[in-house]
Amino acid sequence: MKEKRSPLIGIIGGVGPYAGLDFFRNILNNTVTSCDQDHVGTVLISCPALIPDRTNYLLDEETENPAFGMFECANQLAVAGVKYAGVACNTAHAKRIFEPFTAMVREKIPHLEIINMLETCMLYVKQNMPALRNIGYLATKGTYKSRVYHEYFRAEDGFSLMEPEVQGQERIHEAIYSKEFGIKAYSDPVQTKARSILLYETFKLFDRGAEAIILGCTELPLAVNSGDFLVPVFDPGKIIARRLIELTAPEKLRRE
Amino acid sequence: MKEKRSPLIGIIGGVGPYAGLDFFRNILNNTVTSCDQDHVGTVLISCPALIPDRTNYLLDEETENPAFGMFECANQLAVAGVKYAGVACNTAHAKRIFEPFTAMVREKIPHLEIINMLETCMLYVKQNMPALRNIGYLATKGTYKSRVYHEYFRAEDGFSLMEPEVQGQERIHEAIYSKEFGIKAYSDPVQTKARSILLYETFKLFDRGAEAIILGCTELPLAVNSGDFLVPVFDPGKIIARRLIELTAPEKLRRE
Repeated sequence: MKEKRSPLIGIIGGVGPYAGLDFFRNILNNTVTSCDQDHVGTVLISCPALIPDRTNYLLDEETENPAFGMFECANQLAVAGVKYAGVACNTAHAKRIFEPFTAMVREKIPHLEIINMLETCMLYVKQNMPALRNIGYLATKGTYKSRVYHEYFRAEDGFSLMEPEVQGQERIHEAIYSKEFGIKAYSDPVQTKARSILLYETFKLFDRGAEAIILGCTELPLAVNSGDFLVPVFDPGKIIARRLIELTAPEKLRRE
Repeated sequence: MKEKRSPLIGIIGGVGPYAGLDFFRNILNNTVTSCDQDHVGTVLISCPALIPDRTNYLLDEETENPAFGMFECANQLAVAGVKYAGVACNTAHAKRIFEPFTAMVREKIPHLEIINMLETCMLYVKQNMPALRNIGYLATKGTYKSRVYHEYFRAEDGFSLMEPEVQGQERIHEAIYSKEFGIKAYSDPVQTKARSILLYETFKLFDRGAEAIILGCTELPLAVNSGDFLVPVFDPGKIIARRLIELTAPEKLRRE
């Protein structure tokens, strides 16, 4: 019965809802199991109406800080018994949102520990490839505009982040969002056009000197993966899922 | 702000964990939205260690009724604010499990309403195709053995359920569970062999007089769908997801 008392993992989803789904899939896919009962206990809360658009807030087009809705979700996870939680959204990790959010959690629900996806990703890169400097990243326009990755992969720590030029950013956004061929509309299978755009833009980043690539949007791992490239590929959603398993049931972490 | 107070949907997952994932995907896929914030609030709890194997219990190979663990999950959903919940497992709906479970919920957490997936499916069939009699169903060995479908699609109500013969049941089980070609191991894309088995066994049911087919396992809709057959195909996971949306936010139910 000891099993029953291992700490629960929490997922603040809804930002967007399919990103929460992917986050949970990452937890399942990275757990070693011999039966259903071996999987780690997880609670996913997806209440998108509580959390306004993150990019709009960062661009001052929305006045309410998404941190408040995220805190409300965290609170619901805490009452359900969750010990460690992550937020399934890249842009929500911008410090203007994430810092007030974690400050509220520390003050009101200190028994819940929030794991920061982008910080976890940055620490993972640092530990596993300490010599890495030039890192390209693929993301939505919102993530590029918010410059959230620059807050974690900092120039003063030796990182040099590389983004596609503006047209390339537009094309990547289309590869994700287009109703005709985007990954959100067609994920099974992903359309050739969406995949081609991502490969093309990634190769251009390599030409400019990128030594590794980060898939900075939960849709991207559906279309491209480490098998496509000769350089390291980092998926923050997978990295945080593995970190959460390590914190709650380290013996169940699937070998990479 | 009225939006924020619409009732929350709950999912008792973990039985198995990927079935919980699919249940949530069904909610998302059946919601009409123009932005993230339009999606209905949902909480998924996946604590498989709390819930012993359902088939083993029904075959008297496990002494603890899974109803207790399911109740514990229901309780956590209720404290998180959930109003309507479903259980993401066909076999868990066997009355030896489901009746004590709902009795506990009614007594201890009456403000939580449990929606019965198989009853909802049966009522859907009755309403939409009242003349239907001979219904084939594809399922795991556990679901066949437990005879849970017979408890809902009852002979005295005019239903005649049709199962593949024993060898066919074995083959369907392999199509789902095989490490070499099963849907659990290969879902994206599903292997041709798994799909062929399912088509073959379904056609045999038609030859024997089945007028419709139920996909009685959450993996099956990944491999076959209504486009494959000339007769109606029912997916209980989709039907209950639609019912839950209808109960909480009827205006958001996607048209079929």
